[in-house]
Amino acid sequence: MGSIETEKKTIVGWAARDPSGFLSPYTYTLRDTGPEDVLIKILYCGVCHTDIHQSKNHLGMSNYPMVPGHEVVGEVMEVGSTVTKYKTGDLVGVGVLVGSCRDCYPCKSNIEQYCAKRIWSYNDVYTDGKPTQGGFAESMVVDQKFVVGIPEGLAPEQAAPLLCAGLTVYSPLRHFGLMRSGLRGGILGLGGVGHMGVKIAKAMGHHVTVISSSDRKREEAMEHLGADAYLVSSDAEEMQRAVDSMDYILDTVPVHHPLEPYLALLRVDGRLVMMGVIGTPMQFVSPMVMLGRKSITGTFIGSMDETAEMLEFCKDKEITSKIEMVKMDYVNKALERLEKNDVRYRFVVDVAGSKLHD
Amino acid sequence: MGSIETEKKTIVGWAARDPSGFLSPYTYTLRDTGPEDVLIKILYCGVCHTDIHQSKNHLGMSNYPMVPGHEVVGEVMEVGSTVTKYKTGDLVGVGVLVGSCRDCYPCKSNIEQYCAKRIWSYNDVYTDGKPTQGGFAESMVVDQKFVVGIPEGLAPEQAAPLLCAGLTVYSPLRHFGLMRSGLRGGILGLGGVGHMGVKIAKAMGHHVTVISSSDRKREEAMEHLGADAYLVSSDAEEMQRAVDSMDYILDTVPVHHPLEPYLALLRVDGRLVMMGVIGTPMQFVSPMVMLGRKSITGTFIGSMDETAEMLEFCKDKEITSKIEMVKMDYVNKALERLEKNDVRYRFVVDVAGSKLHD
Repeated sequence: MGSIETEKKTIVGWAARDPSGFLSPYTYTLRDTGPEDVLIKILYCGVCHTDIHQSKNHLGMSNYPMVPGHEVVGEVMEVGSTVTKYKTGDLVGVGVLVGSCRDCYPCKSNIEQYCAKRIWSYNDVYTDGKPTQGGFAESMVVDQKFVVGIPEGLAPEQAAPLLCAGLTVYSPLRHFGLMRSGLRGGILGLGGVGHMGVKIAKAMGHHVTVISSSDRKREEAMEHLGADAYLVSSDAEEMQRAVDSMDYILDTVPVHHPLEPYLALLRVDGRLVMMGVIGTPMQFVSPMVMLGRKSITGTFIGSMDETAEMLEFCKDKEITSKIEMVKMDYVNKALERLEKNDVRYRFVVDVAGSKLHD
Repeated sequence: MGSIETEKKTIVGWAARDPSGFLSPYTYTLRDTGPEDVLIKILYCGVCHTDIHQSKNHLGMSNYPMVPGHEVVGEVMEVGSTVTKYKTGDLVGVGVLVGSCRDCYPCKSNIEQYCAKRIWSYNDVYTDGKPTQGGFAESMVVDQKFVVGIPEGLAPEQAAPLLCAGLTVYSPLRHFGLMRSGLRGGILGLGGVGHMGVKIAKAMGHHVTVISSSDRKREEAMEHLGADAYLVSSDAEEMQRAVDSMDYILDTVPVHHPLEPYLALLRVDGRLVMMGVIGTPMQFVSPMVMLGRKSITGTFIGSMDETAEMLEFCKDKEITSKIEMVKMDYVNKALERLEKNDVRYRFVVDVAGSKLHD
């Protein structure tokens, strides 16, 4: 390894500069590849709803310039002196997090996604005091702990959305003991996360019901995604017939909605797993949970261990996500369309195939 | 066994006649002791908050005359032809339920308390079409499935409150894998159920914090019940220090209250277990559960299997409940005092030692 000067890399990413969220080329430097670090040339990066929230400062904690993107797949270009798990040329992924404290109960339990000092892939501050920047860029330097190998046989552009959307649905099913076949699951909301929910739950051998507010997505859910049933939440009779029938519901709706109609669909010991960050209070009356020992819970992405396991699972089950591949010069349009739910189901930016400089 | 005429028993219980909830002597007949039935002479019966709700029609589904009481301990006087588990002279208990369908998923899983066709000890209709009547009476006829043996060494008057209050706290700790020593638990609310919560959690080897709205019960909790810590929920600084410290909270508060201050006290994977039937909606924002994989759940009493296990546990650990023993002619005053929380912690009626007739 050479001197700091020769190693420090100047790269271009696409950054938001203000709450308009408009992305444009931005030049910045990466940190040196430290002993535990991996330098990754980015090939593909998925576009997640969170990218809109962050780039437009919807959560009130955005710092600019900000290069979004946390469904990153790339090629290893350089590894630090103590990195043994990866070598140059490997295909790897990076997700929502790039750091954690290593010392707390969640870190020691390998559920580092719940570490109170977790570091986000972008719009956060790294241990060196510098801002983290995400995957809409030429490259990233990431601690090996937060890098995952992409299994051979899984197409890199397919792997990208799995690193956030796929993991988000896999982790609760894994953690709550809901992977065995024969279970009956509900998927509430059919966006990027919901569509992965259908695919992964079906691959686990579940009977999967898509629950939606209108009939509009019935054909899509049944014919194209392979759901077993489709339930329109505004149809009181249909909802009544489905009472007490599901072992779990993955609630992917990211805006306020009532919980009780869905709690009623759960069997005894059923779980309602919330995945949408919703700032307005959700409501329920206590007998709805007590009289069936039901749980309202929620999970946040998944651990690095679960990420590796999920990728293997998806490879083995030949799960593919529905993606629309775009170049970087389309990213602002993609964000605009995503905000209107005008995508089936995930945009993936072909970063390496795009012109990033002005 | 003789003819129906000779077996049919006319007895006296104390019944409410209207929503005033005032109890007075009431004469009625018990069904014949069927093949699966046990005739029990009632010795003691605990007074539970639910008795007030039912006798005063707070839930809008009371039928009169109604003999309340569902923490029943008595002596077996007669057993049906196929009853092998009990014999005349045995000390037994009856709790909140006296029937279930035997055929549904909860029944087949021995969690019959979640059977949709469960039959309550009183203010319900039995399979013969007759009203069920509870434990403030000379005797009861109960299906052996819903009768539990009181272990030798456990005083009968002590056992009575365990059959509802004790079971209510034991069941979730058992079911959710929270019995191992070293856990840190919170008990929210220090009434009849809460005080059993402290005693049972302490007996499991937990570090127990009583959480209360004021400082008023600190000495009681720490000195008399043996809690390890006392937390005043209105003290923001104290609450902040306790954030992320508890594996579970048993929420025994039966009126509306915020959930978020208590969700914040839970560690990653912590559980908030609700035990109070509350008709007004409880609230929380989704990140409060998602960012720690926390659960809001609730349980309803416990199974007959858990009842037997809980009584053995309490005998082995020498758990006694704090009771105030009264005669039946005091029961109206006891209900009145209970409604004002003026009891430490459970009234038990000495039924056999009381004059029940006018």
